[in-house]
Formats: sequence, structure tokens, C-alpha cells
Amino acid sequence: MEMKRIRLTVAYDGTAYCGWQIQPNGITIEEVLNRELSGLTGEKTRVTGASRTDAGVHAMGNIAVFDSETTIPPERVAHALNCRLPEDIAVVKSEEVPGEWHPRREKSVKTYVYRILNREMPDPVRRLTTYHVSFPLDLAKMQEAAGYLKGEHDFKSFCNVRTEVEDTVRTVYDLDVARKEDVITIRIRGNGFLYNMVRIIAGTLLDAGRGAYSPDRVKEILELRNRAAAGATAPPQGLMLMEISYADRGNAGFAGKGDSEK
Amino acid sequence: MEMKRIRLTVAYDGTAYCGWQIQPNGITIEEVLNRELSGLTGEKTRVTGASRTDAGVHAMGNIAVFDSETTIPPERVAHALNCRLPEDIAVVKSEEVPGEWHPRREKSVKTYVYRILNREMPDPVRRLTTYHVSFPLDLAKMQEAAGYLKGEHDFKSFCNVRTEVEDTVRTVYDLDVARKEDVITIRIRGNGFLYNMVRIIAGTLLDAGRGAYSPDRVKEILELRNRAAAGATAPPQGLMLMEISYADRGNAGFAGKGDSEK
Repeated sequence: MEMKRIRLTVAYDGTAYCGWQIQPNGITIEEVLNRELSGLTGEKTRVTGASRTDAGVHAMGNIAVFDSETTIPPERVAHALNCRLPEDIAVVKSEEVPGEWHPRREKSVKTYVYRILNREMPDPVRRLTTYHVSFPLDLAKMQEAAGYLKGEHDFKSFCNVRTEVEDTVRTVYDLDVARKEDVITIRIRGNGFLYNMVRIIAGTLLDAGRGAYSPDRVKEILELRNRAAAGATAPPQGLMLMEISYADRGNAGFAGKGDSEK
Repeated sequence: MEMKRIRLTVAYDGTAYCGWQIQPNGITIEEVLNRELSGLTGEKTRVTGASRTDAGVHAMGNIAVFDSETTIPPERVAHALNCRLPEDIAVVKSEEVPGEWHPRREKSVKTYVYRILNREMPDPVRRLTTYHVSFPLDLAKMQEAAGYLKGEHDFKSFCNVRTEVEDTVRTVYDLDVARKEDVITIRIRGNGFLYNMVRIIAGTLLDAGRGAYSPDRVKEILELRNRAAAGATAPPQGLMLMEISYADRGNAGFAGKGDSEK
């Protein structure tokens, strides 16, 4: 039998999980995928994921690969796996990739969205997919603050102090802040994100939006290279990993970078 | 102490509840409101609701009233109650109304939305707020079918056979079907809805959309006055009670009717 590497595009509601990565304290997305893939293939199958999202964070398109001698056609794995997976995890695409293809080593562009429900009263239906902020937010100030974060910067101030990578320089291609009715959406595209980077950016833009400091303070926060200078880490349920683009998926010409976003 | 009647606008995620109305088999929205209101007022407080939504159905603006001698200012009841309520129920507004005001006897216009996720693969994050339909739907046919349901009709074919009311004539003011990306939204406004009426309309429009019959078949379904002629009752999680408008809330000039939508 021939060993194949199969790539999965994975969507999940992160509410019930202790994040992506296997850990002793609770059930994770990775663990459930390994269990159901092993059941499907009859092998001891292990996935390697692109983004180790944190507990409560959602995904429309996280990426994982696994190696298997399964005779199930690669593009049919998604359907076969969805029949076994719990309803809060779904594989939306499966396809064969070259045996050396690796979801974290290949260059990629990731798109995350952070959603803020900005109105006085809470909304129970959206409580698990938005961060409820009841005080007024100045959209123009958030947009101005966001402008200073676009481009290549050292994001040392915008990552968890437990970040283990040495090089904290990343490139943010787009960082849009828009309001539609009672939801403010922060959409960020970049070549790699540090641990908690999107949630710390969201927390910092929130500080600018509520007038805690002037938007151009963000320039100083970048220069300080100190986590304590930036805003709080916004809560996980507002964060969604939308998409990870790779060169072989029609996104050539960009410079990917190592990623440890959680 | 003076007895007051207080009106609540209630939002909830219906996922965990056996619907609005108190019943022996499980916890309901009404029961939780009664429990927390009684705790707040120190009285044996009982709410009367406008719409007895079914298990799994959501609301942005259901309406309920209760009578109390509480000294809490009526407009503060919402905040005080939200501190006690579970996160999947929230009171978004509270206000005093006349002592004889009744949420089901007053004329009203109700707006419901039914959401269909129309794409091949499921989406875990939206699984509890949409109905996933993986086959293609013809939007124009759904819109044409919807057109025959607008206006005053006998909706006998579009209500649960256990409907107890005699008069099944209702007026649908608006019935819009629109697609945005992968979601088809059915928005319906009317002076009253029969038991399961919106979900049976959604199921019937789905039949027209997938080509099970020609859109003008809906005219015959109305004439047959037979539940079996219409489509299946679409599942509850796609349904959301958006708003109930009353004359005193700036919606005078409409003709309300009794309502038993679930």
C-alpha cells in the first residue's frame, strides 16, 4: 500500500475544547481528529496542524495534514470523517499533497477575524462568537490605531510573554476595522502571528476606541517592545481563524514566516 | 406598595431549552425567568409571554410581562435580572406598561427570520443558528413561491395538525427571501402566526427551491387547507423571533391577531 499525505481544511466551534493542541487537562481538536482518523483508517493516525488555536477560539479554515495508507480517495476523506466527527468539528476539504508538504514550514498567509458586539445589552445568541463591549467605541480611532500596525514590524509588545520564538518580526498585510450594525469586525491578514498576537491587537484597538489613549500611542507601543505596554488580551470567543493560504492554493508571491498564534 | 406591570424584551439562545412554555419534561425560558424574577423581587413572580417559541428556537425580542410591587425602577429591572440570568438568556429592555396591557391580547406585528446555510459542507460555528442544506437551491423559485403567501390567507395548510385555534386566517405583510454568501434568509412579518407556521413555510419554500414542485403549487397548497399538502417543518435552530411591535411602540395602524406560533 502506498503512503499518502492528505491535507485537511478544518472548521470548528472552539467553545467546548481546550484549544487545538493535545494537552493533559481536557479534550482538544487535535485529539478528536486523531481519534476519528485512526478509527477511519485503522492506523494510528496523527495530524500536524498549521495553527494551534487557543481554548474557545473558532476556525473556518485551519489546516492539518496526516500520512496514511488508506484506500479512501483523498478527496472523500472529508465526507467519511464528518460522519464520525462531533457536530462542532467538520472537515470542509481533503486533498492529497506532496509527502514533504508541511503546514507550518510552508509559507502562508493567514486571515483572522475578531468580532466585537458593541451595544449596551448582551446578545445570548452571539455570546460564544463575539466579545460584548457595552461602552461606546470610536471606530475612526480604532481604524487610525490599526493603520500603525500594518506592514513589517517587531510585534514583541503584541505577544504573550511566554512566546518562545526569538524573531518577533512579522508582516501585517491588511488590518481592517469596520462596523456593521452592532458588530465591529477586525480583519487581519499576515504572514505569521505570534502567540496571542491577534487578541492583543484587538485589546489594544479597543483601548484606542474607548479613548484610553490616542491612536498614535500604538507607534510607541511597537517601539517599546514590551508586552505590558499594549492592551489586554481580548477574550478568545471573538476570534475566528478564517483562512490559511499557501502558494499551491493560488497565493504565490508572498513571504511566509513561522507562526505560533494561539 | 404599588403593583406595577412591567414589560420585558427577552433575547435567548434556545439551544439548551425545551422552548418558552413551562412543561414537565425539561427546563424552559419561562421557568428560568420566573425563578430569577422571584429571587429578585422576593415575590412569587410569574411572567406571561407573547410567543411560546419551541425547543431550539432563538429570540432577539420576545415579549413578556409580570406584575410586581418591587421598588426597583422598571427600567432597571433588565440590568438587575441579567446579573442573575444564565448567559443564554438576557433581558434587553424593561419598562412599565398599563396594568391591563397583555402581550398576546394587544395587536402586534411579529418579525421572524429563518436562516438556511446553503453550501456543500457543514459549518460547526453556525450549526446551532442555521439549517444546513447541502443541495443547490434556486433563489428565484423560492422568491416566487414566497410571493403567493403574502397577504391575507387561510394558513390551515401551514400549521401543525395539533393547532387548537379555530380561525387560521392570518396576514403576512412581508415575506422576503435573500441570499448573502452562503446563507439564505427568509424574513417574514405578519399579524400573527399559527403553531409551526414559519417553519412549515420555510420547509415549503425549500421544496420549491430544490425543484420538488413548481412555485405556483403554493397557491394550491393554500387552497387545500391540509397540512399534508405543504412541506416539512424545517428544524428549529434556523428560526429566530426578531421583534414584536405593538401600537404603543410606534407601530399603530395594523391589525393584530391571536398568535400561537411555536
